[in-house]
Amino acid sequence: MHDIHQYTKSKEAFSRAARVIPSGIYGHQGPAEGCFVPIEAYPFFSERAQGSYFWDVDGNRFIDYMCAYGPNILGYNDPEVDEAARRQREQGDCITAPSERMIEFAELLVDTVASADWAFFAKNGNDATTGAILCARAHTHRKKIVFFRGYYHGVAPWTQKIDYPGILEEDVANNIYIPWNDVEALHRVFDENKGQIAAVIGQPYMHGNFADNELPAPGFWQTVRRLCTENEAVLIVDDVRAGFRLDLAGSDHYFGFEADLICFCKALANGYNVSALCGKEFLKNAMSSLSYTGSYWLSAVPFAAGIACINKMKRLDLPRLLAEKGERLCAGLIGAAKQYGYDLRVSGAPSLFYLRLADDPSLSLHQEWISECVRRGVYFTCHHNHFMNASLSDADLAETVAVAEEAFSVLRKRHG
Amino acid sequence: MHDIHQYTKSKEAFSRAARVIPSGIYGHQGPAEGCFVPIEAYPFFSERAQGSYFWDVDGNRFIDYMCAYGPNILGYNDPEVDEAARRQREQGDCITAPSERMIEFAELLVDTVASADWAFFAKNGNDATTGAILCARAHTHRKKIVFFRGYYHGVAPWTQKIDYPGILEEDVANNIYIPWNDVEALHRVFDENKGQIAAVIGQPYMHGNFADNELPAPGFWQTVRRLCTENEAVLIVDDVRAGFRLDLAGSDHYFGFEADLICFCKALANGYNVSALCGKEFLKNAMSSLSYTGSYWLSAVPFAAGIACINKMKRLDLPRLLAEKGERLCAGLIGAAKQYGYDLRVSGAPSLFYLRLADDPSLSLHQEWISECVRRGVYFTCHHNHFMNASLSDADLAETVAVAEEAFSVLRKRHG
Repeated sequence: MHDIHQYTKSKEAFSRAARVIPSGIYGHQGPAEGCFVPIEAYPFFSERAQGSYFWDVDGNRFIDYMCAYGPNILGYNDPEVDEAARRQREQGDCITAPSERMIEFAELLVDTVASADWAFFAKNGNDATTGAILCARAHTHRKKIVFFRGYYHGVAPWTQKIDYPGILEEDVANNIYIPWNDVEALHRVFDENKGQIAAVIGQPYMHGNFADNELPAPGFWQTVRRLCTENEAVLIVDDVRAGFRLDLAGSDHYFGFEADLICFCKALANGYNVSALCGKEFLKNAMSSLSYTGSYWLSAVPFAAGIACINKMKRLDLPRLLAEKGERLCAGLIGAAKQYGYDLRVSGAPSLFYLRLADDPSLSLHQEWISECVRRGVYFTCHHNHFMNASLSDADLAETVAVAEEAFSVLRKRHG
Repeated sequence: MHDIHQYTKSKEAFSRAARVIPSGIYGHQGPAEGCFVPIEAYPFFSERAQGSYFWDVDGNRFIDYMCAYGPNILGYNDPEVDEAARRQREQGDCITAPSERMIEFAELLVDTVASADWAFFAKNGNDATTGAILCARAHTHRKKIVFFRGYYHGVAPWTQKIDYPGILEEDVANNIYIPWNDVEALHRVFDENKGQIAAVIGQPYMHGNFADNELPAPGFWQTVRRLCTENEAVLIVDDVRAGFRLDLAGSDHYFGFEADLICFCKALANGYNVSALCGKEFLKNAMSSLSYTGSYWLSAVPFAAGIACINKMKRLDLPRLLAEKGERLCAGLIGAAKQYGYDLRVSGAPSLFYLRLADDPSLSLHQEWISECVRRGVYFTCHHNHFMNASLSDADLAETVAVAEEAFSVLRKRHG
């Protein structure tokens, strides 16, 4: 039997945090957001991390399948990436004139990402998606943007929902929403908005929260690509979440098409703070024309880390490695469920797998199962995709399946 | 006589950069922006930095008065800040659950900044100002924002100009612009927009580009404060640029008033990548209600660096130190100008001094003088404020004045 984690110090720290920080912990790492439920199953603060694990402030260890919501792709504190960053830090990081690491990183991305003729660096995924929208509007002199419902493209006002606090109708006045995988709808909006659509923006597949993740239907992206070209609209792929976990050449390449603009963040530098917008040659002048920068956007340390991260991902043939580990893990989890008479559904790509226990449409049984896993040191979340990383060992995967089995056995005992 | 710098390798690197990066170097660190003129006087890429200096890729050393456009406040590679960051990095940086460094940093800011009851962290100054606008709109359920002409609040669409590429009229539809220091105009906009103004946003003083910087007129901020309170509008101080160089308790405190929301970035962590939005208790719930986060916003290393930076700034009584160094330097520069019959005007705070040679309204003589300084290893820019840092030694200041003198002598010889 696995130990049941207690979170005494985490709770104390959270009370302290709540006094001086709105929500205590905000965003998807905080208990106020929907995918972090049930909150009593989770630790709030971490003490340290290494490889595939993090330890919370109570000393509990977790095999971490959230990977800081994506950035941890090689394993926490990867020695090669950290060494490259350390060496660069001795030279300098945030300096009045940028370092040549910026050029080398741009050259490496252009070399690696199929649809990239150039790279532009910023700090957040949100900076990259917002830059893409500005670039598309500057190039086309058009306003409207087509989104696929269920999307997440960051937190800038243009990409939030009208009913979210602080958002105005002006912020989203030029947004058009259509269902994922619906080519008829896309045909219709192009017909109804002739010469007005600046861009179509989409994640490579639908990995929204609280729903099974949906891959593109056969031919879907090819039709989107064709319609964008015919209508002179810019095709933007938001690869912030999936980027480098499906294909080092870009998730557009994985699905057999080419984006005009592609946004990266998360896995780009194994947790070092950098994002990138890559694009086609015909959009380079529009990108150059923008008033778009930030205090730390040209800092050298994250570039050095990113170069080391991409080189190591290439050497490891990382997407293949993560897919293999993910497939093996998901098969084990499905088997564990079956053993106790449960029906666990896995969706999305194996390196970004989404889980749903189909035996209870209210999802409360699913949440219960996840809770029992987390309390035993396997960090899953309930209604968000997970993330694989290269440092997950065979022993980690085996222990995960053993914990999942124990959690299912608890559920079966409790509910008969 | 000082050596005249050559930029052979910088130019080669820039050509290489321009092939794979829009504009080669973008933003205020790049040659495409107006304050980086004349471009032939400047190096493009840095090799390393230490204390008050950076070295370019040609091996030229510069006494750096731009400080990476603000972040370098203690000196490049400050040993205390770097050691705190290094120790935290060994523990972990970007982890699924945040570190307690986040709480400690928030507590330290609440302790340090007079108007702060809470702190919210992000990555860019732009994240902080955008968060402030969202928070003000969420709290007031109003749309309009009052700006002071000449402002810079980042690069989000809401704060750009309508004639900038990619910007829509919807982005700026609720912006009201009034002149700096004009209380009559502020009275008028509050009268004409009763119950519609969500916030007034301003930098602590007007430090725009291409113009002498203007301090607040006596009583100006107190009137702004009173009008915001009477009209239930949120008063936002954008302290991204000036923050911690005027007063560790906030630039609002320096000018004798209290903001409702105050935005920090740049000097917050001596170049480590973090920004903060601090605010009053009555806005904490509105801030909590926002959908606002990012992949690296809770990373621990910049928090550890920020804690070390603020503690060291306190110990050094940094604003006093920078003011003293800045006053001494500016007096030396004015004296050097006078010696050759030139009239150098200094404006803004001494720790963020703005320079203008008043003898030629076309500013070309000013640019010529700045060029001669830069080519001799003193890094000024032409039409942007400068930044002092703690590691500038007496010898640095003396050498700067000597270079300025030599540059004036060159001008006098050239123009008679």
